[in-house]
Amino acid sequence: MDISALQKARYSYKPKLPASLSLPVNEIAVKLGEPTEAIADGDALKAFFNRTYGKPIATFVKGANDSITRKLTVGVILSGGQAPGGHNVIAGLYDGLKKGNAASRLLGLLGGPSGLIDNKSVEITGPMMDIYRNTGGFDMIGSGRTKIETPEQFAASLENAKKLGLDAVVIIGGDDSNTNAALLAEYFLDRGSGIQVIGCPKTIDGDLKNEHIEISFGFDTAVKTYSELIGNIERDANSAKKYWHFIKLMGRSASHIALECALQTQPNITLVSEEVEAKKLSLGQVVDQICDAVVKRADNKENFGVVLVPEGLVEFIPEMKKLIEELNDIMAENEKDFSGLKNFSEQSDWLVTQLSDPSAYLFRSLPEEIAKELLMDRDPHGNVQVSRIETEKLLMNMAESKLEDLKKEGKYKGTFSTQDHFFGYEGRCAFPSNFDADYCYSLGFSAFVLIASGLTGYISSIKNLVAPADKWIAGGVPLTMMMNMEHRHGAQKPVIKKALVELDSKPFKAFAAERDTWAVKTSFVFPGAVQYYGPPEVCDQPTITLKLEKS
Amino acid sequence: MDISALQKARYSYKPKLPASLSLPVNEIAVKLGEPTEAIADGDALKAFFNRTYGKPIATFVKGANDSITRKLTVGVILSGGQAPGGHNVIAGLYDGLKKGNAASRLLGLLGGPSGLIDNKSVEITGPMMDIYRNTGGFDMIGSGRTKIETPEQFAASLENAKKLGLDAVVIIGGDDSNTNAALLAEYFLDRGSGIQVIGCPKTIDGDLKNEHIEISFGFDTAVKTYSELIGNIERDANSAKKYWHFIKLMGRSASHIALECALQTQPNITLVSEEVEAKKLSLGQVVDQICDAVVKRADNKENFGVVLVPEGLVEFIPEMKKLIEELNDIMAENEKDFSGLKNFSEQSDWLVTQLSDPSAYLFRSLPEEIAKELLMDRDPHGNVQVSRIETEKLLMNMAESKLEDLKKEGKYKGTFSTQDHFFGYEGRCAFPSNFDADYCYSLGFSAFVLIASGLTGYISSIKNLVAPADKWIAGGVPLTMMMNMEHRHGAQKPVIKKALVELDSKPFKAFAAERDTWAVKTSFVFPGAVQYYGPPEVCDQPTITLKLEKS
Repeated sequence: MDISALQKARYSYKPKLPASLSLPVNEIAVKLGEPTEAIADGDALKAFFNRTYGKPIATFVKGANDSITRKLTVGVILSGGQAPGGHNVIAGLYDGLKKGNAASRLLGLLGGPSGLIDNKSVEITGPMMDIYRNTGGFDMIGSGRTKIETPEQFAASLENAKKLGLDAVVIIGGDDSNTNAALLAEYFLDRGSGIQVIGCPKTIDGDLKNEHIEISFGFDTAVKTYSELIGNIERDANSAKKYWHFIKLMGRSASHIALECALQTQPNITLVSEEVEAKKLSLGQVVDQICDAVVKRADNKENFGVVLVPEGLVEFIPEMKKLIEELNDIMAENEKDFSGLKNFSEQSDWLVTQLSDPSAYLFRSLPEEIAKELLMDRDPHGNVQVSRIETEKLLMNMAESKLEDLKKEGKYKGTFSTQDHFFGYEGRCAFPSNFDADYCYSLGFSAFVLIASGLTGYISSIKNLVAPADKWIAGGVPLTMMMNMEHRHGAQKPVIKKALVELDSKPFKAFAAERDTWAVKTSFVFPGAVQYYGPPEVCDQPTITLKLEKS
Repeated sequence: MDISALQKARYSYKPKLPASLSLPVNEIAVKLGEPTEAIADGDALKAFFNRTYGKPIATFVKGANDSITRKLTVGVILSGGQAPGGHNVIAGLYDGLKKGNAASRLLGLLGGPSGLIDNKSVEITGPMMDIYRNTGGFDMIGSGRTKIETPEQFAASLENAKKLGLDAVVIIGGDDSNTNAALLAEYFLDRGSGIQVIGCPKTIDGDLKNEHIEISFGFDTAVKTYSELIGNIERDANSAKKYWHFIKLMGRSASHIALECALQTQPNITLVSEEVEAKKLSLGQVVDQICDAVVKRADNKENFGVVLVPEGLVEFIPEMKKLIEELNDIMAENEKDFSGLKNFSEQSDWLVTQLSDPSAYLFRSLPEEIAKELLMDRDPHGNVQVSRIETEKLLMNMAESKLEDLKKEGKYKGTFSTQDHFFGYEGRCAFPSNFDADYCYSLGFSAFVLIASGLTGYISSIKNLVAPADKWIAGGVPLTMMMNMEHRHGAQKPVIKKALVELDSKPFKAFAAERDTWAVKTSFVFPGAVQYYGPPEVCDQPTITLKLEKS
């Protein structure tokens, strides 16, 4: 296997641990707090989590822990989209297990949760572990999006866990995967099995966070990688002075990534989906915001700029959301009629007879390419795949039309040349930043201590992340504590609440306080590439979002 | 001005210099060799360069140099597209000038060559210089694509240079800009002016290189930035195992960037334009190559991969080149007829009556989106802007169709989901790698010594670049030596020969020896982000291309 110089160098990086996890392993004791409550819907949740609801928060302290040296067999699952640091969670878990008892074993369940359902696994050995330390990607054991949902899948999971002789399963995933972890923990107990389940908070989107989880891992590295690219493009824009760059950023529904990138790079415009929804902005109003900055900058002879667009934006524009919902319904209910239409022109003519008046009007007003994207590529549930809509191009094209109108009215005298970009895959598998390398390793090690201490239905938790790593607070939080009931697929389901950007949060306020200046006055900041060596102020800083939230 | 932590840290980086330039400045002497000849067309070139043709190569050695301490006023121009390190050329020049004589002055000509034509300049002071050291971008004084071409422009350049009291002009640019530098040097001498002109080799494309210029600056940082992103995407592809990523890379005509990225990241397929042209491949044959790898990998259950596509590819596919030429001519000659056509369908129907049969057939077979791109966005010369053609999508769409056919024939059983990317602006303004920071600073310092020593019509030259910086060989090469005569805009013109990828070069051969393996067997390498600190094998390596060429 050919490896890069950086990969080789990263193998010897020693992730930093919180002081409580740096103790000799038999001196790491668990301190349990008071029983806990869910954030909402406690009674309904109790019914779902008869055996695991309301457990106490666990914190690691110095003390005796006899059970920590028992021999364990643990299975680990990477679930969902890649996030930098996944391999380090596995490394922390592996090293913890081996420190506890050299005979303990770690099995990697292959290709995500389906590895457990289908009983596909590999034993993780020392040499195998070593070639994945401090590396990006989930290629060590693969990931997958299969969920453990049906009674058959739950039964198969239990059966296979028993076959493999597992004492515990660690699920590394986002909000859905951790909800799944909670359900599996309950199921295992309910079926009389002692097999424990521990979750770990993963997602670059940054939307799995709450009072107890300061941030999901991977967010740090991903936003720094995107900010590197945005900064480079800003510098190019400010050098060439001829393009407006429209940059769409991954992140699903939440705009955390766009917001952090904005704080890091200070572009002219950053759209925040949650604000667009709160203010009930129309597509035209969003475009007006952009054009307003373009016109003002043109007055200063600056016919260039950078616009950040969160991936999920269109679903937060009320009129677009309505249009998409209507399209989903119409196309599902009239599948035969629709599939008989020969081309886009026929499809379009037929659809406007089916859509509500406002939606028909909006549909007609969209650039043809975007309208086409709304009609193709349905997901398995028959819904349009919002992430595939080229929102950046939609806004670019609409801004162009609007600016032409303004020019005719004599209100705009500039030039408007554009470039579009979409960053997502570029950052999900980067080498984890020192922060993510340390955080993930600590999460994995913490998961081991939770398992060895006999806990189940917990998510591994590392807090106080803005402090140096030795001051981090390690422990576990009962998953039920982060849950509420939500309407999903026609029924009330227990779920971990997804964290969207809050408009009264410190990061949003810090952004809102500056953005009018950034819109007009070039205020670009160039973060450069993620650094793993060199001065700590360059290499070891958490995100601005995290620093502001904890300030 | 808000700056990033990395930018602040980079201010204190001290670029490394060749030993000859690290001497006390009055001990840097110039050793001149024998008279030189152009690579071809010597007699014709002598007519153009009556006064500057055939000068000797200059090398710096330890010795007395009385003229180096004279007071100088120098103008510096950034010409053409951005490349990492431009600010360091200016820094090396600035520091050299001030070491020679504290009263010497450096003027930045603003916005490219037009800064000289229109007499727009700024004096570069110490504090101004310090905030641009080791940073990316050309934002310090801006760049531009205006060329000094007409008699009026040459006259204005001389007049303004005199007004500004310039002793010399340094032009930092690519092959065209350095050809321009040679013409300007000759013009100044011919008009009895002692104003000297020195060029510096800049371009991320890597196509300004020859026996005397080992590589243009910026290539190193740009390819490393693109390789970071390609490696991250490869790791994502190998983790998710569900997408074929088609990645177009900047680089204009030459495929040096794609080739170096291939050597760094070992993707499944890398198209090299020069090879496509040499083998006279049709678009269909290029697509067949891709599909062949997709099918073989599908047989191994690997329905994912990465394809690199050089920006200039379409013009190297003979049938596409012919189609584009015909379209340019038809649309220029029939501008009125064409502009009267209402929509793409009418345009298309009319065009196929005008095109040759093979071109008409090819045009009809293109995906509609691509065919549309061929018809819009003409450049000022009426030509299609090849860089705006989404070649990556063209190949993706055609491969998809071909694979559907193969599936029907039972020859392909895989799935083919795709993602497309275009990387260019992401790398042109990155913080220069240590290599580019050192190389550029040395180029700038060397330009100062050439000026102080009274030379004109030279390009600053730093050789032996695979050795540590102190072993680098600094000097100057007469620009005429790198020139030949070429047919441009209907006449024979003196130009610096553009370096395309040579199929018998060591880098191409190294790639060709491995690519069949890479196509089928996942052999990805993940270079990670450019590092400025840390182990030298990570931070201070030249490109693989350079190492192979000099091995």
